[in-house]
Amino acid sequence: MSETPLFPAPASRRTFLRTGAAAAAAALPVVAALGACGETRASERPAADTSAAQRAQAVPPPAPSPREKADAMDAMHERGIKAFPARTEGKGNQLLAPRMESGIKVFDLTCEEVQWEVEPGRKVKAWAYNGQVPGPQIRVREGDRVRVHLLNKLPESTAIHFHGLELPNDQDGVPFITQPPVKPGERYTYEFTVPNAGSHMYHSHHNSAVQVGLGLLGAFVVEPRRVRPAHRADVDYVMVLNDGSHGYTLNGKGFPATEPLVCRQGQTVRIRFMNEGMMIHPMHLHGMHMTVIAKDGWDQPMPWKCDTLNVAPGERWDVLVKATNPGTWAFHCHILPHAESEHGMFGMVTALVVQPGVA
Amino acid sequence: MSETPLFPAPASRRTFLRTGAAAAAAALPVVAALGACGETRASERPAADTSAAQRAQAVPPPAPSPREKADAMDAMHERGIKAFPARTEGKGNQLLAPRMESGIKVFDLTCEEVQWEVEPGRKVKAWAYNGQVPGPQIRVREGDRVRVHLLNKLPESTAIHFHGLELPNDQDGVPFITQPPVKPGERYTYEFTVPNAGSHMYHSHHNSAVQVGLGLLGAFVVEPRRVRPAHRADVDYVMVLNDGSHGYTLNGKGFPATEPLVCRQGQTVRIRFMNEGMMIHPMHLHGMHMTVIAKDGWDQPMPWKCDTLNVAPGERWDVLVKATNPGTWAFHCHILPHAESEHGMFGMVTALVVQPGVA
Amino acid sequence: MSETPLFPAPASRRTFLRTGAAAAAAALPVVAALGACGETRASERPAADTSAAQRAQAVPPPAPSPREKADAMDAMHERGIKAFPARTEGKGNQLLAPRMESGIKVFDLTCEEVQWEVEPGRKVKAWAYNGQVPGPQIRVREGDRVRVHLLNKLPESTAIHFHGLELPNDQDGVPFITQPPVKPGERYTYEFTVPNAGSHMYHSHHNSAVQVGLGLLGAFVVEPRRVRPAHRADVDYVMVLNDGSHGYTLNGKGFPATEPLVCRQGQTVRIRFMNEGMMIHPMHLHGMHMTVIAKDGWDQPMPWKCDTLNVAPGERWDVLVKATNPGTWAFHCHILPHAESEHGMFGMVTALVVQPGVA
Repeated sequence: MSETPLFPAPASRRTFLRTGAAAAAAALPVVAALGACGETRASERPAADTSAAQRAQAVPPPAPSPREKADAMDAMHERGIKAFPARTEGKGNQLLAPRMESGIKVFDLTCEEVQWEVEPGRKVKAWAYNGQVPGPQIRVREGDRVRVHLLNKLPESTAIHFHGLELPNDQDGVPFITQPPVKPGERYTYEFTVPNAGSHMYHSHHNSAVQVGLGLLGAFVVEPRRVRPAHRADVDYVMVLNDGSHGYTLNGKGFPATEPLVCRQGQTVRIRFMNEGMMIHPMHLHGMHMTVIAKDGWDQPMPWKCDTLNVAPGERWDVLVKATNPGTWAFHCHILPHAESEHGMFGMVTALVVQPGVA
Repeated sequence: MSETPLFPAPASRRTFLRTGAAAAAAALPVVAALGACGETRASERPAADTSAAQRAQAVPPPAPSPREKADAMDAMHERGIKAFPARTEGKGNQLLAPRMESGIKVFDLTCEEVQWEVEPGRKVKAWAYNGQVPGPQIRVREGDRVRVHLLNKLPESTAIHFHGLELPNDQDGVPFITQPPVKPGERYTYEFTVPNAGSHMYHSHHNSAVQVGLGLLGAFVVEPRRVRPAHRADVDYVMVLNDGSHGYTLNGKGFPATEPLVCRQGQTVRIRFMNEGMMIHPMHLHGMHMTVIAKDGWDQPMPWKCDTLNVAPGERWDVLVKATNPGTWAFHCHILPHAESEHGMFGMVTALVVQPGVA
Repeated sequence: MSETPLFPAPASRRTFLRTGAAAAAAALPVVAALGACGETRASERPAADTSAAQRAQAVPPPAPSPREKADAMDAMHERGIKAFPARTEGKGNQLLAPRMESGIKVFDLTCEEVQWEVEPGRKVKAWAYNGQVPGPQIRVREGDRVRVHLLNKLPESTAIHFHGLELPNDQDGVPFITQPPVKPGERYTYEFTVPNAGSHMYHSHHNSAVQVGLGLLGAFVVEPRRVRPAHRADVDYVMVLNDGSHGYTLNGKGFPATEPLVCRQGQTVRIRFMNEGMMIHPMHLHGMHMTVIAKDGWDQPMPWKCDTLNVAPGERWDVLVKATNPGTWAFHCHILPHAESEHGMFGMVTALVVQPGVA
């Protein structure tokens, strides 16, 4: 039986992003590439705030007219959209290939403090696994033997809890209940046979409100031994939601630095929502519905459809999207203050780009 | 096959409301009409705060006794209940009949600033479609050709997103992604064939945290070509939840100005919950359960029952209530500070009135 | 057909707790008893803050090293865990045996102000039924005739709403809609035949944001006439979630004063989550999944699995846990600031203790 590969080559997405970034600083790659947008008129207007700046050097300017104020606001909104996907330093959730040792998949995780660029120019203090927020994506198969070496370079003790995995108690990662805390400078090793498939997570379980808030979190995806035919997908995408001290983020970045999801028309996209924050985030996809197939890694007995999926802290929800509708589709948290301000979209916003033409 | 009419005549509800309002300023129409309440003793007591006011003109009054304080609080609570349903200026969510043009259903939506009376005497600034909060209810059938003319009389640009409809990308209403913003004073026309049935919404997708918060939102209900027999209802009710700058509201009004749901015993009531706010609202119905049949316009594969339904921002949930239990039943958000203060019920509270006798 | 007994003897849990408490002030009963923890090294280190206190009496101490700071934090975390389950005065949610009068099950509920010890040493003002927070657990069977005598010793009026029970309207407990408020010093009697099975609640419906927040709430569990074989459980546990003026609590207590759930390996544990607060609480169980069987007392049409269950205010969710995995498992709200601070775990944290060996 054919299976979803463990390490799919996300060629189209990477190519897309590189192309987009190379296109130019002021480019609008996603939208322009698809020619789906009629904003030409707007972008040809001189930006209102530029003229305001010029006038400011002379006499006190007259109060701006409503139209000038609207144009100034729109220009800010447009700049945000056109910057998407914006280049920032660092990329989280990168697939971490294991070392093989006597049939065991070995992963090395080092946690340390880094500066993390959430949006262009906004750097924050982060506590990261391997310098990434979210930490590197671990992806294994049900039944695999896994060893995780943790090296703690933080000034605090820590520990890793594998959230959703039904491990032997002594591998559960809760200091003083199942293990001692891993002190600054110390190492600790977890080892287990992966018991249950699904979209899981790993994160600190020590001083966790602070440590997870600062970035000590990542996706732990377990492929089933056999993928149900109905669950086969062409694109498999992890989307980690967060709302801690880094602001509202998807995979560690705020719009316009979020990564678009890209597929061809007719393809099936699997999205694995994971909430590592403190708030619910009802994720709304424009243009197409989502079919919910799993909760916390467990198949739902009957898949069901929605366009807005409420994801609570600690939850994981897996959905399939049949990409029937070509275009660039807004995809965002529907708590609107998590997604848009008077200055334009920010935070928990990305896009699903369905490229026209048969896959 | 018989179908739910597109424009049901809500005669009983209107009659009820008119009767209620005419009954008198101090009347308790819903409760009194049904004789279901034993509050006579309470209402015959002189209101404690009246006596307090009289005493205040003489010497410094003695501190009120616990009983006097309790009576004063209860009197405030009673006044709120007895005022229900309170008359206010303006009514949102009114069905908007389309103009027919060559087989196309045409709707005109003008957005402009108005003063909106949320509760008796509390007027707020609102940005409204056609002067209503929520905007007028659009109700069409799957497969209909629809044209929506938008006229923007606001001081800001805007745009309409048809939330839940799987439209062609250029009708999706997201400025700078699928269209230019509609500037102050400008017009814009949307036109599409309605692709999917269900309880949907329309709202601004420009500066949306502000614009939707101020009232640029409405229900867009799409009747299916064929109604499932199990989904037939005698009463079909849209309940838009909100929590923005207007406070906690149901269909744009706070208790006691909210509208009761009225039916006869034995009837089936369909309620379409739609959350246009920023918070979850777990809606609790007293006396009877709700059978959940659809999420975001999509049938649930197996209906399920509850008495408290958590509705997150952007979500729509359709439920059926079999009105077996006669009486006036409180129906409210169960986040209690959204529904009651020391001054009595307010905000997200209404009632389901099941009139005794076979329908 | 065999049925779940109405008044199961929770012998193992009580014995466990007594043993644990007797073991010693500084003991770590749950963890130590199971030998599941490798914290020996940590607990043998001298606590960093003790040495700090000693040094403070001499010359100004040097700034603590990162390791000393980490040790000090860890010591605080360890003390919290080792204190669990901590002894406090008062225990809520105790099963209330009815008096039988002519075949009617009679319950007496007196509400009055008490001091309630939420955690060791932290006493708060509470308004309690029979001196307990949550109030005593009422557990009856579908079809039972029940009479509840309420005596109000509070300085405010009150009333009892039986949340989830489909009662005749005049027993619904909403002042000025279905009954007069019950004044300070007054009595009121509810009487009804229990119409529907499931995990329900009773609480004040008068000035409820304040009164329920202060503790006027309890579980009202209705056993079905016949328990579905698939729903049979060895342990039946009610977990009332709250977040009002008493802080984040499970059954009225904050960690480490929360009560562990205890069972033997192989047993089935039924947990009845009930949210009496104002916030969602996504409850996360480590080590095993939960199978969701009912919502608000109504069977789900198809049970489904999860490890993190989002419980909204007013909701009740019933789950079964097959206790296959021995050990002490953290069980907590996954909104991390509800469960852990820099000083260690607190609030909505408990543990599921699966004792090894066949039941």
